[in-house]
Amino acid sequence: MTSRPPVQEAAAAAAAAIPALAGMPPRQRAAQLLAGADAIDERADELIELASAETGIEAGRLRGEVRRSTVQLRLFADEVVSGEHLDVRIDEADEEFALGVRPDLRRMLVPLGPVLNFAASNFPFAFSVAGGDTASALAAGCPVIVKAHPGHPQLSRRTAEVFSAALTAAGAPAGTFQLVEGEREGVELLQHPLIAAAAFTGSVRGGQYLAGLAAARPTPIPFYGELGSLNPVVVTPAALDARRDEIVSGFAASVTGNAGQLCTKPGFLFVPSGSDLGPAVAAAVEAAPEHRLLYPKIAEGYADRRATILGTDGVTVQTEGGVRFDDDQEGWARPTIVSTDLDTLLRESGRLSEEAFGPLSILVEYDDGTRLAELFGTLFEGTLTAGVHVAEGADAPWVAGLVAQMTAHAGRVLFDGWPTGVAVSHAQQHGGPWPSTTTSTTTSVGTAAIQRFLRPVAFQNAPVELLPPALRDDNPWGVVQRRYPAGESRSWGTAAASAD
Amino acid sequence: MTSRPPVQEAAAAAAAAIPALAGMPPRQRAAQLLAGADAIDERADELIELASAETGIEAGRLRGEVRRSTVQLRLFADEVVSGEHLDVRIDEADEEFALGVRPDLRRMLVPLGPVLNFAASNFPFAFSVAGGDTASALAAGCPVIVKAHPGHPQLSRRTAEVFSAALTAAGAPAGTFQLVEGEREGVELLQHPLIAAAAFTGSVRGGQYLAGLAAARPTPIPFYGELGSLNPVVVTPAALDARRDEIVSGFAASVTGNAGQLCTKPGFLFVPSGSDLGPAVAAAVEAAPEHRLLYPKIAEGYADRRATILGTDGVTVQTEGGVRFDDDQEGWARPTIVSTDLDTLLRESGRLSEEAFGPLSILVEYDDGTRLAELFGTLFEGTLTAGVHVAEGADAPWVAGLVAQMTAHAGRVLFDGWPTGVAVSHAQQHGGPWPSTTTSTTTSVGTAAIQRFLRPVAFQNAPVELLPPALRDDNPWGVVQRRYPAGESRSWGTAAASAD
Repeated sequence: MTSRPPVQEAAAAAAAAIPALAGMPPRQRAAQLLAGADAIDERADELIELASAETGIEAGRLRGEVRRSTVQLRLFADEVVSGEHLDVRIDEADEEFALGVRPDLRRMLVPLGPVLNFAASNFPFAFSVAGGDTASALAAGCPVIVKAHPGHPQLSRRTAEVFSAALTAAGAPAGTFQLVEGEREGVELLQHPLIAAAAFTGSVRGGQYLAGLAAARPTPIPFYGELGSLNPVVVTPAALDARRDEIVSGFAASVTGNAGQLCTKPGFLFVPSGSDLGPAVAAAVEAAPEHRLLYPKIAEGYADRRATILGTDGVTVQTEGGVRFDDDQEGWARPTIVSTDLDTLLRESGRLSEEAFGPLSILVEYDDGTRLAELFGTLFEGTLTAGVHVAEGADAPWVAGLVAQMTAHAGRVLFDGWPTGVAVSHAQQHGGPWPSTTTSTTTSVGTAAIQRFLRPVAFQNAPVELLPPALRDDNPWGVVQRRYPAGESRSWGTAAASAD
Repeated sequence: MTSRPPVQEAAAAAAAAIPALAGMPPRQRAAQLLAGADAIDERADELIELASAETGIEAGRLRGEVRRSTVQLRLFADEVVSGEHLDVRIDEADEEFALGVRPDLRRMLVPLGPVLNFAASNFPFAFSVAGGDTASALAAGCPVIVKAHPGHPQLSRRTAEVFSAALTAAGAPAGTFQLVEGEREGVELLQHPLIAAAAFTGSVRGGQYLAGLAAARPTPIPFYGELGSLNPVVVTPAALDARRDEIVSGFAASVTGNAGQLCTKPGFLFVPSGSDLGPAVAAAVEAAPEHRLLYPKIAEGYADRRATILGTDGVTVQTEGGVRFDDDQEGWARPTIVSTDLDTLLRESGRLSEEAFGPLSILVEYDDGTRLAELFGTLFEGTLTAGVHVAEGADAPWVAGLVAQMTAHAGRVLFDGWPTGVAVSHAQQHGGPWPSTTTSTTTSVGTAAIQRFLRPVAFQNAPVELLPPALRDDNPWGVVQRRYPAGESRSWGTAAASAD
């Protein structure tokens, strides 16, 4: 598993697993996901120790991340058993159909084929080897090749060993799950004809490059990139009056947790002019201990972004923080908070409105909430999240307009809270308009993430013995089926006409 | 509407319609779709006359196409009222959530923004001005700009007038629906920053070019292209024995209808070696009258493809047919049937395996069904449809393998029938792997087509007065809501574990 199989071999092994995976009953696929989850939970101590040493992330957070990954596998196992993700639709044959005879039509989603996942650096479990993209693709019934992130190679290899052995023991065919390492290997696989889809979590630059390669293949394939995000949060005057201390401490915790190396870190906090929140926020973040950054390239990139922001006209430093490099070239960060005003942000958005991947955030004072609401779409093209703190029953008339703008530019709109911390559930949405993702119509967290690796196929007038089990009337897999009876087309339009 | 508004003006007008469309109750949007359908039905005679003159398609088929378009609008109106397309999911707040406190999370799909539709030539109603892509985008709540196909300009203008007036009278805001003409205008709109998605039905070459432009924008947008398709149909020996005459006449009708200018025309018929079906098929297609092709460029392209196929070594002409150009450069076609064998097809696939958009099909004799099943994926990378004629209880052991290959390479797998004729319904799938479409995960026919123009947004802990109506507990729009109760995460994995 950790022997860096040549690209051709990995792709061929993944493709060879397709027939066995396609015919597998959901309960068997689900059992494999559960076995993978159990195996990781059993080895959690060992894996967390490896992860902590390689990434500098503290053990407590890593323990939560392991739990998140294994809970995710269990949730997806249940989803697989329910068959909800197959979106089964059955049109009964209809002699009286409005457009001539309707054949028996049965539609379901089928796996796309071998999926290539580019692991992330900042979530060595939840967005890495056995993380969300892997769980999604396996739940969909696709073989998976993970391209390991070079920031945690030992952990990647060990997780792959543990996870792969558990899948195999639970009956997964050879080639169901593989790990490869190397940037060149990743690019070659992305361009390999046998690869059917790819997922990526990382920088805008990296994602844009890989998305371009996926689109330029002789046979283009879906590429799901989760890229950078600014995650603005707005505080209304009434909310600030009501909960000033709570807002200061919550914001400070959200910016400094994991040294700000989270795709949902709030990059901007908009506060009313004259609220003078800088000193309190500065004091709160200064309490955070110095934190190692993930790996030297991340630290250098962050140091550059920080220098650009601090060197921008009209930006005031509230607490300087900074990055210190040790003898191993590892960077260690202390939080940086700066402040400015809305007009400066507009003028300098070229310098300020790019993700600073580390413990830095920008306070922006605004005079006029209506203007802020109007400018929101100019300031934030696409972001994973946008938040607003409001005060019940006492809020400004512009808040509704702001929320409409946030809805148009974000994947998750949150109230009276902070964007970090993403629940794995049914209604979660982790995605958003470009450049926060390459594909705003999808999510990379939550059960809807499985859909990324499926495509629909309809079977017309198929004899029962040639129908996939999920589409049969006797429904041997017990999946959710939606049926559309003969005769229904005679009344199409009447539900709409009588709705008034 | 028909005054060729400058590109900037059209894009701005579409964008200006967004807020009013976003806040519109479903029953109002549905009423607009119904009004559009009624208006087209009322003007059907006039529109069919225009269409017939411009496209050469016979009035009978055009009447069916008008009906298909308006039935589609009515079906989509009902879907809008049900709210099924919004995929509403509500995670109740959960203090005991497996990963720490789960906030109240409510997820729905929201419109992407202004949609640009490139109309097709071969369906002047169903894939044109008020066709499936327009119905889908309007149902999703997106403003629509249709780029008219130059093959039927008068019809496009008149349909747009009728349809737009009806939408407006039913309360649609200005900018909801617009028509533009001109290739340059289409390309400029596709690259315009205010356009959020595009759909296209046409050639592989044209679709590939436009998809490239959409991907290369500073802000890439989804591009849904339905391109070319080969639609192979296989006849088993047992089926041929049982239904020889029926197969000959059905195939001939499917190849010659609309002069073969359908994206689902069967391009290949695989028959057992020695079945000598050529003369019977030739006789059947020769009964079809000479048919005008859609417009001169289509006729020239078809004449070129036909010449390439007829000039290929190992291809035998069963009936020559041909294209005759009249004084107006319009092409008139008589059907062409050629035959070959599986090995010749494999050797000459560079010349033979490209869509011939007109009344031409290739009979291919095969010796060994097992070998045909194995080669299917090599011969057909991606196709909208694939079909097989089987005989109940008497069929070859290789049929299941062939169906598995068809499932892997087609969007619709059909039995004992012909691919032309696509029912508009819930379970329809019109799409398939590249190069039959740019986006195999979607459909351009059926209610699932609406999803192409929506993206998910989750609202976290939103006060009820700031929640979209579809997400409220009191559900004022009466849409389908799926709820996930507090406490559920404690049992995640148990459904899967107990499924055995």
